[in-house]
Amino acid sequence: MPTLRFYHPIEVRYADIDAQGHLNNAKFLTFFEQARIQYLRHLGLFAQAQSFMDIGVILADVHLAFRAPVLWETAVRVGVATTRLGNKSMTVSQCLLDGATGQVMAEGEVVLVTYNYHTGQTIPLPESWRTAISQFEDLHS
Amino acid sequence: MPTLRFYHPIEVRYADIDAQGHLNNAKFLTFFEQARIQYLRHLGLFAQAQSFMDIGVILADVHLAFRAPVLWETAVRVGVATTRLGNKSMTVSQCLLDGATGQVMAEGEVVLVTYNYHTGQTIPLPESWRTAISQFEDLHS
Amino acid sequence: MPTLRFYHPIEVRYADIDAQGHLNNAKFLTFFEQARIQYLRHLGLFAQAQSFMDIGVILADVHLAFRAPVLWETAVRVGVATTRLGNKSMTVSQCLLDGATGQVMAEGEVVLVTYNYHTGQTIPLPESWRTAISQFEDLHS
Amino acid sequence: MPTLRFYHPIEVRYADIDAQGHLNNAKFLTFFEQARIQYLRHLGLFAQAQSFMDIGVILADVHLAFRAPVLWETAVRVGVATTRLGNKSMTVSQCLLDGATGQVMAEGEVVLVTYNYHTGQTIPLPESWRTAISQFEDLHS
Repeated sequence: MPTLRFYHPIEVRYADIDAQGHLNNAKFLTFFEQARIQYLRHLGLFAQAQSFMDIGVILADVHLAFRAPVLWETAVRVGVATTRLGNKSMTVSQCLLDGATGQVMAEGEVVLVTYNYHTGQTIPLPESWRTAISQFEDLHS
Repeated sequence: MPTLRFYHPIEVRYADIDAQGHLNNAKFLTFFEQARIQYLRHLGLFAQAQSFMDIGVILADVHLAFRAPVLWETAVRVGVATTRLGNKSMTVSQCLLDGATGQVMAEGEVVLVTYNYHTGQTIPLPESWRTAISQFEDLHS
Repeated sequence: MPTLRFYHPIEVRYADIDAQGHLNNAKFLTFFEQARIQYLRHLGLFAQAQSFMDIGVILADVHLAFRAPVLWETAVRVGVATTRLGNKSMTVSQCLLDGATGQVMAEGEVVLVTYNYHTGQTIPLPESWRTAISQFEDLHS
Repeated sequence: MPTLRFYHPIEVRYADIDAQGHLNNAKFLTFFEQARIQYLRHLGLFAQAQSFMDIGVILADVHLAFRAPVLWETAVRVGVATTRLGNKSMTVSQCLLDGATGQVMAEGEVVLVTYNYHTGQTIPLPESWRTAISQFEDLHS
């Protein structure tokens, strides 16, 4: 996995651990989601939002490969990188690392569709998003 | 999506709904997980288990496509079907339906690896599992 | 604990069980919340709601006593009874039972304040609520 | 609320926010639980534990008063203070603060019973716990 330009640290909570003593599989999506929102915030794209109803992306597809069990003590860091900007969607590559060792414990890819939560319709990717993300990721369309 | 041989109904909880008013994306994995466990139980493969430490499968890979937002009122049913039995793994196809209309709201596939939680090692798929699942699904290897 | 007039069954999910093998303590509040919403719906008080922003109650206080560990197999039923209607609040008594044996596994009391989520202000208890709840519970003010 | 001797910062996750836009009520117990475990760890009482099965406390009672809605942006700090050590139990006072302003957004008290998860029996409060907690809190019995 190449080095990404954005990582967000997440503290594993006792309540994230399941009866088998590992980070529960669904929590990986929670961690990915949290890191994506912090990524958008870091890029200034979440600044004018009045509420989460204004964020404007909806999850369309997710693929996730689990590489190693995550324990309570693991100092997790979640990486985020946009790899493709479409007309009405974006593809985001994510990974979950052991922050102490750098070991990749999970990696995956999500497709987000730009969406108006008030009307329930898909919308074109805003130009402000295209500009900010392209610059941050050094993407060329 | 073809009709599967096992469905489990799940009540959406208020706490499953996120700030955007839909079933949160991570909860789809929670619902899939719950239906898979009930499927194993239905097949009698969870009968002698003393604890969840004895279940013996670990999630290796998941792919999930979201088709429609799930609301609080949706009477969810989750389908489960094993489609492939390997030496140390099994592939399971899953879907989330609106129980009232039959609409497919999400579908996906997970790969489970048979695993000994006490030793932390992969193990061969038990013959009892191979027999019970093959019969239930009418799988030919 | 006296017999209440409303119970809601809840399926314990694998994801509700924590690393110590019991229903996690926070999930008791999730279960209580779910049963309260179904109670309001049963009384017809949630009928015209367009969204959860219109429900109009906010939790002010909770007391909860844990009597016995709840396991994955437990067929939970959550009881709900309003015991007091104030000007801008209501007090609700709740319990969590083993549906198979009737054993009380937890019991508690919550205070709800009637609240306008759009303005962020407390509001008087609606007369329709006062009437419906008083009749259902045979409360005399 | 007096100043406590231990606070733990917790990042509110998107998934902690409910359909009404606030930190869901059950998550307050999750946050309290996480801070209590970090408190025990800070006092060196969680050092030799092999697994969560060895922690040795079970929640018996909780009281929680909600003072103000917690938003996604809130930089939460959770305070923990043991106020009483019994023969087989301890009483812990907790609060949830806005870390930026110091505002108390929730406060409560929990009773923990010392417990052997392997046998399912209550046990006397270990002397090592009594000593470490008494010293840290300057408690006199």
